[in-house]
Formats: sequence, structure tokens, C-alpha cells
Amino acid sequence: MEFRKPIPLHSAIKLTMEHTPLLEVEEISLHDSYHRILAEPIIAKHNIPPFDRAPYDGFAIRSEDSAGASEQQRVTFQVVDHIGAGSVSSRTLGKGEAIRIMTGAAMPKQADAVVMLEQAKLSEAGDRFTIRKPFQQLENVSLKGEDAAAGKVLLEAGGLIHPGTIALLATLGYAKVKVARRPVVGIIATGSELLEIEEPLVDGKIRNSNEPMLQAQLARIGVPYRSYGKLKDQLDDCYNLIKQALSETDCLITTGGVSVGDYDYLPAIYEKLGAKVLFNKIAMRPGSVTTLAVLDGKLLFGLSGNPSACYTGFELFTRPALLKMMGANKPYLRHTQAELSENFTKANPFMRFIRASITLAEGRARVAPAGFNKSNAVTSLAHADALIALPGGSRGFSEGDVVDVLLLGTEEGEREWNL
Amino acid sequence: MEFRKPIPLHSAIKLTMEHTPLLEVEEISLHDSYHRILAEPIIAKHNIPPFDRAPYDGFAIRSEDSAGASEQQRVTFQVVDHIGAGSVSSRTLGKGEAIRIMTGAAMPKQADAVVMLEQAKLSEAGDRFTIRKPFQQLENVSLKGEDAAAGKVLLEAGGLIHPGTIALLATLGYAKVKVARRPVVGIIATGSELLEIEEPLVDGKIRNSNEPMLQAQLARIGVPYRSYGKLKDQLDDCYNLIKQALSETDCLITTGGVSVGDYDYLPAIYEKLGAKVLFNKIAMRPGSVTTLAVLDGKLLFGLSGNPSACYTGFELFTRPALLKMMGANKPYLRHTQAELSENFTKANPFMRFIRASITLAEGRARVAPAGFNKSNAVTSLAHADALIALPGGSRGFSEGDVVDVLLLGTEEGEREWNL
Repeated sequence: MEFRKPIPLHSAIKLTMEHTPLLEVEEISLHDSYHRILAEPIIAKHNIPPFDRAPYDGFAIRSEDSAGASEQQRVTFQVVDHIGAGSVSSRTLGKGEAIRIMTGAAMPKQADAVVMLEQAKLSEAGDRFTIRKPFQQLENVSLKGEDAAAGKVLLEAGGLIHPGTIALLATLGYAKVKVARRPVVGIIATGSELLEIEEPLVDGKIRNSNEPMLQAQLARIGVPYRSYGKLKDQLDDCYNLIKQALSETDCLITTGGVSVGDYDYLPAIYEKLGAKVLFNKIAMRPGSVTTLAVLDGKLLFGLSGNPSACYTGFELFTRPALLKMMGANKPYLRHTQAELSENFTKANPFMRFIRASITLAEGRARVAPAGFNKSNAVTSLAHADALIALPGGSRGFSEGDVVDVLLLGTEEGEREWNL
Repeated sequence: MEFRKPIPLHSAIKLTMEHTPLLEVEEISLHDSYHRILAEPIIAKHNIPPFDRAPYDGFAIRSEDSAGASEQQRVTFQVVDHIGAGSVSSRTLGKGEAIRIMTGAAMPKQADAVVMLEQAKLSEAGDRFTIRKPFQQLENVSLKGEDAAAGKVLLEAGGLIHPGTIALLATLGYAKVKVARRPVVGIIATGSELLEIEEPLVDGKIRNSNEPMLQAQLARIGVPYRSYGKLKDQLDDCYNLIKQALSETDCLITTGGVSVGDYDYLPAIYEKLGAKVLFNKIAMRPGSVTTLAVLDGKLLFGLSGNPSACYTGFELFTRPALLKMMGANKPYLRHTQAELSENFTKANPFMRFIRASITLAEGRARVAPAGFNKSNAVTSLAHADALIALPGGSRGFSEGDVVDVLLLGTEEGEREWNL
């Protein structure tokens, strides 16, 4: 029997990331850019806002003309023009003159303050108004460049494009944006025990849940997949399909077949392909058999066939690798800490990842296992929004202990972990 | 000038949700179901796992035959069959017999324990092995129904379908899944100051950033949109387009035109349409002009034209309404609390939502404003992964104060808020 030496989690992650290629950059429409990764830093091409403007509906005035105004001695202004947002007044304000102005409209020449509509007492005809207080210079004026000065670096390359990013890019006129190409990921399930989802159960068999699960894990980070179906445990079929899949994709995920069972052909296939196995045993549970091989710069992830182990292996290794391929500067799952809400008294020499449900709402974060906790469990996956990371060692953990937690299904990630 | 009475945030949310219709249910392929909402509870149609199985590669034995085994007195077993996962042995084990079994394979008849491969000392020919310890009944056996017993309610209707949900649905044979139809949302931007993204800046104008931003906010919750372009501030054009958009969509978002400026036609259009205005002023900043009208059971969201106000209005009102249309049981943004990392000394009578960046990694959550904080700001949106919610009142807030925070861009949400 083959002997495999487990390597620590951080070594496996380091090896994964060191061997992850960066994909080429393409230019896409801003409308299609949600959840892609910026491939260029974004610099303010112009001031934001690009001109001094009114932040409220009201009247643009020269502040000096408001001096001395009070309840007893109201100062009167004559309305000489009327401009909507997007229009520019051709008038230059004279003494005691005002221009009716709408939210967002450019300040007229000579005007340096805005009287809000509710601060003005309008005449019947609407051509005059009075005010009861003096206005400061630039009072109620939104200044050119106050949000961002031209030339400022606003976003670094590697950031996820989310709705707020898109608002900024649109403001700056980025109708197209440079992003790394998305990797195409192939998925192959192995295991002659696997039925299609629509097939009725037969004795000894279970349905293939890993493939649709992985498709959704990929969809969660906006990565397209190509399904290569489900293999029986036949070495040659497996080899040929994997060769074909590698030629058509940027990265390949297999599920199952990486253990030391008699039908676990993947080690033999890696050898036949000439792929370099970077690791095939990690000091963690579940997913200790998670394997990574590399061939011609392409990563071959051999994930466990057990659903919880497969899920965890994807989130810990495949997800950050795919995000790195796209240039992400925060490729790792978002990390936090929380109090354990139950005991884990049994010590374990290996680092454990436990599907969990985290409660954030009550001021202190608490985390509880999401249910049945074995590598072949599937119901706990359906209830998990986090993974508890318990370091390996000789002791157990108690309720109230503060532990590391990785959040699932969040846009934002981490630059690094210290797990 | 029209007088509008501001209503509290919670009243505006209550009114929104009370008037939100539920959309009809459809059946879709499990492969397309990521990020949809379950329209039916999921009940275990069968046990998970469906049969007793081996969780490891090894040998199935009758535990009674291992009695008395020790280092000194190893017990020998004869390997009489060999089964891979998915196969079922036709053999019934006799005394001292064992069957080679792979991870996931069904336990043979009479077998009630599994000797892991590494616990067995194999003979040269591989047809016998010895063990050095007795095995308990059911030792190393994964029991039928241990993950979920047939008949158990596993997921309630209204839950978001994420990758873990999909794994469970696939396991249970849900090739199709019942979900509410997704609403089609129309977007219309108003404001003659708006340029297209690709247009060069001209004096007094800015680019339309709200529409692509809203498209991405919709994409974030998996909701498709239909763009009705950008209107100049012309009442009749606006009215006709809104009438058309309403006939083609489930919900309409307009940006801008809801304030009290001279070109803010939406109040007049709501009246002309016969739409009932549920609110048009909320005691909050930004987004106080956020308006909601309803016509024939369809919601018309009148969001502010200011980017930060538009963004906030969508996340607080439109997002939960759309998720409720799809039947979500957690339609609100995920809520947590964190320490303020800077002072907000200026008191404000209104509830404020501040675009913010939250740090979770260091054991205690801390939150800081994401930059320039005005309703027309756009750069802070690009840096925000959270909204700080500061209640209105007579006092400011200090560094270290624990405040409410709503997380942006997370799959998981909340059933309710108490903001």
C-alpha cells in the first residue's frame, strides 16, 4: 500500500498558489463586469464631481449679498434665470441676483452659495425671494473634486467588481473595463456508485451530488464550467477523458478516485499523463486526500468523493486558485472569529473544518456546527454559511472558546490567512 | 411647495413589504437553481445514506469474529469477495470471513464492522489478513439514515439555494426544483444632466452611473432587468415610457425625479397613472426622498438620483421586496454589530446609513466609513462592503461605540431587523 506523507494546510495552499497561472486580460462591457476582477488600477480621469454644483434644489446666490440678513431684516433677491440639472446658465450674477437651480446643476458664474428651497420665502409671482440669515462662502455647494481629485488612484488592480465599483467606473466613463479572462473549469466525477440525479436509487448506489454542487460553487464566483460527465472506475476511459478535458479547459476538477482504494485510478492517471503531483495528503479533516497535480501549467484538482470533503477542498484550494487566475487580490474566504456554542471535547491531531452556522446579529459572533459532521455528510452542507477551523493538537475545544471561522458565500475575501 | 411628512425607516420597510406581491412558482432544473429561493420544503424522501456503508477502504467483517484479537494473538480473516463502491456482494459472510470493501460501498450481509486498510496486515497473496484488536459492533460503519432519516423536514420553503443546498437536493433526486419565478425589473433613469457612460463629459453634465450600478445590484441577487434607458425631464415622455415599462415588468425602478425640484415629474406621473404613493419621504439620510408607489399590485420604486442615496434605497427597500417576491424567508441584509473606528460627533435628527468597510479578521469587528460621505458621493460606494446604521437623535457617536452594521454582498440574509 502506498504511503502518503500529509503536509500542513498552509503548505498545501502555498503550493497551490505558487503553481496557479495568471490568465490573459480581456476588455469587456461594464454591463457584464459584475463579479469580475479589475485587471488595471482605476485612476480618476477627471474630478468627481467634475464641476461645482448644487447639492439641493434652491437658488444660487453671491454669498456676499446675503450679509446682514436676519428675521427682522430679511434680504431680498431677484430671480434672473432658471436652470435644471444638465443645463448651464449663461448669466453672470450681479448684486442681489439669484438663479433658480436644481440638484446637481452646475453653479452659475459668480455664485458661491445655494439657498435651499425651504430656506427661501418666495414672492407670489416667484420672481423674488427673501432670506433671514447670511450665507457663508461655499455654503451648500458641492465642490469640484471633493469626492475624488483628478489623477488620484481610486482602485487597485485585483479588486472584485461589485455594484459600487461599477458606479465609480460608469462615473469615470469606463464603458469597457479590463479584466482577466475567466477560467473554464472542467468537472469529472468518478465512482461506479454514482447515479444521475434523476435516476431512482438502487442498492449500493447514491446520486452524484458533487457535480451540481461544484457547478454552484463555481457559479458563486462567476466561473463557467464544462461537464465531462461521470466516469465508471475504468482506468483507460478515465485517462482518455481527462486528456480531452485538459485540452479544452483551463483547470480540471475530478471528484473521487484519489484515495488508496483499488478503484482509485487517479494517481495512476497522473503518472500516465506525466502530471506532477504537488500533494496528495493534507493534515486536515475532511478532505485529507485532496490532491493537486499540475501539467503544462494547468491545475488538476483531485477532490474527495465525499460531499463535505469535496466542498471543503474546493473552498480551501480550488476557489482561491481560480480567483488568483483572474488576478484577485483577496482570493481567500473571508475570515472572522467567533465563540463556539458547543463543546468539541475529542482531541484530533489534524486541523478540522466543520460546516457551521454563524450568528452575527447579537453583538458577539457565535458559531455552531450545522449538523452531522462526517466527511460523507451532506445535510450539514445545506445548513452551513461558515466553516469552523479547529487547529489540530492534543486538546479539545469548549463552548465559549474563540475559534477561527471562514465565511461562505460572501463577495469580499481576504488577502491572506494565518490558519 | 409640496410638504412631505417623513416616516420612520421601519414604517417605510413595513409598508414596502406589506405591498409586495408573491410571484407564481415554477419548476426549474437543479443545475439552474443556484441563488434561487426554495418554494417548497424539502423532506428526506429516503434515508441519507440509503444503506449501511463503509466510510473507509478496508475489509467488512463480523465483529464477533474479532473477539480476543491482540498484538500477541492476532486474529486471521479469509478474504472471500471484493466489492467496489456501487456494487453489492452476493456473499453472506461466514465465520472468519471478510470482504474487501471500498469507501462508500454497501455493507455485505452479516457484516457489522469495517477493518480499515491500515488496520489490517495483509498476506503476500492478499487473500488473508490479520488484526490485532477486537472490533465493536458497527465500528467503522456509516449507518443508513445517520445523516438524515427518511421523512425528516430538511429545509424549509423560503431558503436561498446555495451550493450546499444543491448537494442535498441532488442527493435526494431533485433533478427539478420548485422556486418562485424571478421578477423582471425595469430601470428608468431620469435627469437631463445624464450622459451615457461612453460620452465625453460636457459642462454641467455627469454620466449615468445609477443604471449600471442598479443592474449589478440586481445581478447580485440573481434578478434580471430590462433597461428603459434614460429620460430627459419631459413629463409626457416619462409618463408614456413608465406606462409601457409597467406593462412589461413586475417592478419598476426609476432614479431621480422624485424630489421637489421643478423637473421632478415623478409625483405628477404617479398621480396621472393613478398609482398610490405609499411614502415619499423617509426620516433617513441619504435617500430621504425614496418614494414607493403601487399600481395594480406592482411596485414603483422612485429612488434618488444621487448615487449613494440610490444605492442605499435599493438595498434597504427594493432588495428585500424583490427577495420577498421570490418567497425568501431572509430578505433583509445581513446584520451585525461592530465598533466604530472613528468619531461622528455631529448629531443628526435622522437615521444615517454610512458606506463603510468592516474588518472582521482580528477577533472583534471594527467598522470605518469607506470615504467621502455625502448622498452624491460615488467613490465611497466602490470601497464599501457594509452600511453603518446610526440612529437619529441628539447625540453624536464616538470611536469605540458599538453600532449596527448591515453587510453588503453576502448570500445569507436576515429574517428581520430591529433598526
